[in-house]
Amino acid sequence: MLTVFGSTALDTIRTPKKTLKDVLGGAATFAAISASNFVDTGLIAVVGKDFPKEYHQILSKYLDLKGLTIKEGKTFRYDGSYDKTLSTRETLKTELNVLADFKPTVPEEYKKSQFVYLANNDPDQNSALIKEFDKVKFSMCDTIEFWISTKRESVIKMIKAVDAVVINDEEAKLLTKEFNLIKCAKKIMEWGAKYVIIKKGEHGSLMFFDDVIFPCVGFSLEDVVDPTGAGDSFAGAMIGYLASKNSINSAEIKKAVVYGNVLGSFAVEKYGLDGLLQIKKQTLQNESSYMKR
Amino acid sequence: MLTVFGSTALDTIRTPKKTLKDVLGGAATFAAISASNFVDTGLIAVVGKDFPKEYHQILSKYLDLKGLTIKEGKTFRYDGSYDKTLSTRETLKTELNVLADFKPTVPEEYKKSQFVYLANNDPDQNSALIKEFDKVKFSMCDTIEFWISTKRESVIKMIKAVDAVVINDEEAKLLTKEFNLIKCAKKIMEWGAKYVIIKKGEHGSLMFFDDVIFPCVGFSLEDVVDPTGAGDSFAGAMIGYLASKNSINSAEIKKAVVYGNVLGSFAVEKYGLDGLLQIKKQTLQNESSYMKR
Repeated sequence: MLTVFGSTALDTIRTPKKTLKDVLGGAATFAAISASNFVDTGLIAVVGKDFPKEYHQILSKYLDLKGLTIKEGKTFRYDGSYDKTLSTRETLKTELNVLADFKPTVPEEYKKSQFVYLANNDPDQNSALIKEFDKVKFSMCDTIEFWISTKRESVIKMIKAVDAVVINDEEAKLLTKEFNLIKCAKKIMEWGAKYVIIKKGEHGSLMFFDDVIFPCVGFSLEDVVDPTGAGDSFAGAMIGYLASKNSINSAEIKKAVVYGNVLGSFAVEKYGLDGLLQIKKQTLQNESSYMKR
Repeated sequence: MLTVFGSTALDTIRTPKKTLKDVLGGAATFAAISASNFVDTGLIAVVGKDFPKEYHQILSKYLDLKGLTIKEGKTFRYDGSYDKTLSTRETLKTELNVLADFKPTVPEEYKKSQFVYLANNDPDQNSALIKEFDKVKFSMCDTIEFWISTKRESVIKMIKAVDAVVINDEEAKLLTKEFNLIKCAKKIMEWGAKYVIIKKGEHGSLMFFDDVIFPCVGFSLEDVVDPTGAGDSFAGAMIGYLASKNSINSAEIKKAVVYGNVLGSFAVEKYGLDGLLQIKKQTLQNESSYMKR
């Protein structure tokens, strides 16, 4: 079983063609639903009393929700706007709401999870939470610019506490203060991560472990409509696949990265979560064998 | 046999760590020397009387120079400066000198060349020159921002006159006025190119032909010192490999792209041409089989 911890949000996403208001989103939501294509996945997150029933139904269709807390107050909200090339996003508003003083706990049933993904989140909270699991075989975290800029030392501490870091290229450079991605990865490995996976958006990814560099191309798409959640979907697919195999040998982890790239590409083809919710098993296999050619 | 047409230059290259003054460079020089790893290569270019004897010796060691004109006057000079991340280059000075009124002709012995590469150059001159070849099986051109901005219609005319276009991602977007690389490639194919190869620097490349997209990762390097000539080395290796096989079937053209990426990576590891001049056959094979994994 896999446990995913992080944010579930109501997103307002402004793209050149369409604006989505208060749609189901959040790093943990994308990661967990992506992972659920491969393995039973439990979600640890919090939402407010305003969280729409239909979204709760979507989550419960794909995920185990013993870890989902429904609290008095409003759900975490994010509002962001993409430029016309969909390559940069400006944050217009972040309302933490119920997330602000959330004290996550791990349900008893999840404590035996061998695979744990700490989605982008306060690094101190991530570092504390991972200690509550008894039998972790493989843990992975992500982080973003906000935490690197405000709590860099805590991010580095979190990295020490996990096996793998999945991070995008610009954030890897910001975190390590290096320009070259190999140098970035080496520094993150020196801090204690055994695996570093640098996501490069449409250009795919680079995975580093031991003295191996495993590059993977991105899956080229002609019609990208909404990049939101692509990186989270990548991470979720990667750890979801590994959990389904209950293995982290080098062949499986390479395949996991290929699935990461494929699911990331599904996410951006539709608005919001729709790309992930409409995946058919056959398509998943076709795309992945294309990538592994 | 392969013929390469384009500029041979004396470059001044300013990198964060080192400045090179009046070193041997030029798009055709890089492309032809890169190609010469695979096949006999003839160079059509012009230099001035000031062209150093030692540079002439280097060229003559790797290339057939029947097409090299030595003219009264000074050699074409380029002066450019990289930023500290080596990702953007500012042009400080371009002195066309002998290139300004050069009227290239194709030596009789070259007219039977089945493979012709038109390096970045005045598109009208490229379009005229390709007509002088009698038995072209595969021709390829490159172009840069300067020609797209000043002679876009001529660039499109040149594309109609060749089989393949190799172009970097930013220039493909500028030329086609599209953001998405698949859309860029489709437009260039509509203009008449059968193959479009979009170079993405460290992120590798995408090749398009028929309804195929062939992505290729870049060869990751920890120490990049001088990106000058990487794209030209890519193109030269690609067409040089195809010429050596005298084939453009789909398996060979994919291998050609892999060699393109590998030779591009050699170019940036050393200053100026040194990366290309120091290639050992064994290294070339090792790196390429790594990429084809």
